[in-house]
Amino acid sequence: MAHQEILQVETRGRGTQDITRAVNAAVARAGVDTGIAHVFVQHTSCSLTITENADPDVRRDLETILARLAPDGDPAYRHDDEGPDDMAAHARNVLTDTGVTIPVGGGALLLGTWQGLYLWEHRSAPHRRTVVITVLG
Amino acid sequence: MAHQEILQVETRGRGTQDITRAVNAAVARAGVDTGIAHVFVQHTSCSLTITENADPDVRRDLETILARLAPDGDPAYRHDDEGPDDMAAHARNVLTDTGVTIPVGGGALLLGTWQGLYLWEHRSAPHRRTVVITVLG
Amino acid sequence: MAHQEILQVETRGRGTQDITRAVNAAVARAGVDTGIAHVFVQHTSCSLTITENADPDVRRDLETILARLAPDGDPAYRHDDEGPDDMAAHARNVLTDTGVTIPVGGGALLLGTWQGLYLWEHRSAPHRRTVVITVLG
Repeated sequence: MAHQEILQVETRGRGTQDITRAVNAAVARAGVDTGIAHVFVQHTSCSLTITENADPDVRRDLETILARLAPDGDPAYRHDDEGPDDMAAHARNVLTDTGVTIPVGGGALLLGTWQGLYLWEHRSAPHRRTVVITVLG
Repeated sequence: MAHQEILQVETRGRGTQDITRAVNAAVARAGVDTGIAHVFVQHTSCSLTITENADPDVRRDLETILARLAPDGDPAYRHDDEGPDDMAAHARNVLTDTGVTIPVGGGALLLGTWQGLYLWEHRSAPHRRTVVITVLG
Repeated sequence: MAHQEILQVETRGRGTQDITRAVNAAVARAGVDTGIAHVFVQHTSCSLTITENADPDVRRDLETILARLAPDGDPAYRHDDEGPDDMAAHARNVLTDTGVTIPVGGGALLLGTWQGLYLWEHRSAPHRRTVVITVLG
């Protein structure tokens, strides 16, 4: 039986927000001992990523790297209806993850010690983001 | 119980093809109300991506960005047996997605309003691509 | 019912290691005919990728491409506690995959002829890596 929940996240503009605890809470409510948890953003200008949870500089450096791979306001972009961060946000979504699947064991996410799950806002302005969590076992 | 189908897609060379409707049809046939749909290409020179479905310029700009990150005919490549787009296609596959998992709710894909699922051909020539769709609930 | 196993992999430093056979063995033990296999690394400085399994030059070229996108010892990085490959490894993990899901059919991984599953070590030094395999059907 699949357990499904919606998580709403208010972002503060470009940057990462730790949602590990919220997803673990959904896994606990699912009552699944062994299986998987699938997490998905219903948007194309933010994304999910699993990365190092100890030093915030890691996420700052990831931002630096993505800014090189998909810069804001690149003159080559044709799509810029919503400003210089519009197309850059779509590209950063494609280079990272719209959905992430994490193993569940002993009724909790089987993440490594240094792994955190982050919602990554790629737009400059704050947004309300919808995350769908599905737990299967 | 898992429901599994094979979808054959004829590509027209490099570019994206919307397969959202075809995958939703498979989900309907699966008879799963709540769960996940997993979509997978059995190839290493095309990929899948979920991105903005309204303005085709978004996908054109994504192509521009990938062309910078993994250019055709780069003299640094050792693997070029099948031409200048050969290694570039493998790299673009690795930077995007071989498989995508989408939540299912109410018997349909739980995609956001602006999300479409695309098969992304990275080779210059048209190819026949095999997609495996697995629905679990 | 979900079947779950832990696979320990000893890496030899930066580079790829084929784990397709080990994951297929876990799928066989799971006794699942039709479903999915989810493979996950509990680390943020190595990753998983599915790519071409015939010519080793493909994986060498992928390394060349990642070295451009996330170079070692970039002066822009703030996080370098463990050396010049530290932040580069986190970035390469984010640009590739922490987890990979593969369809299962006829009791085996439904990979294409040219697809192999690789654990990709991004650190220079050898590491012991933990991989969680979950099979659902």
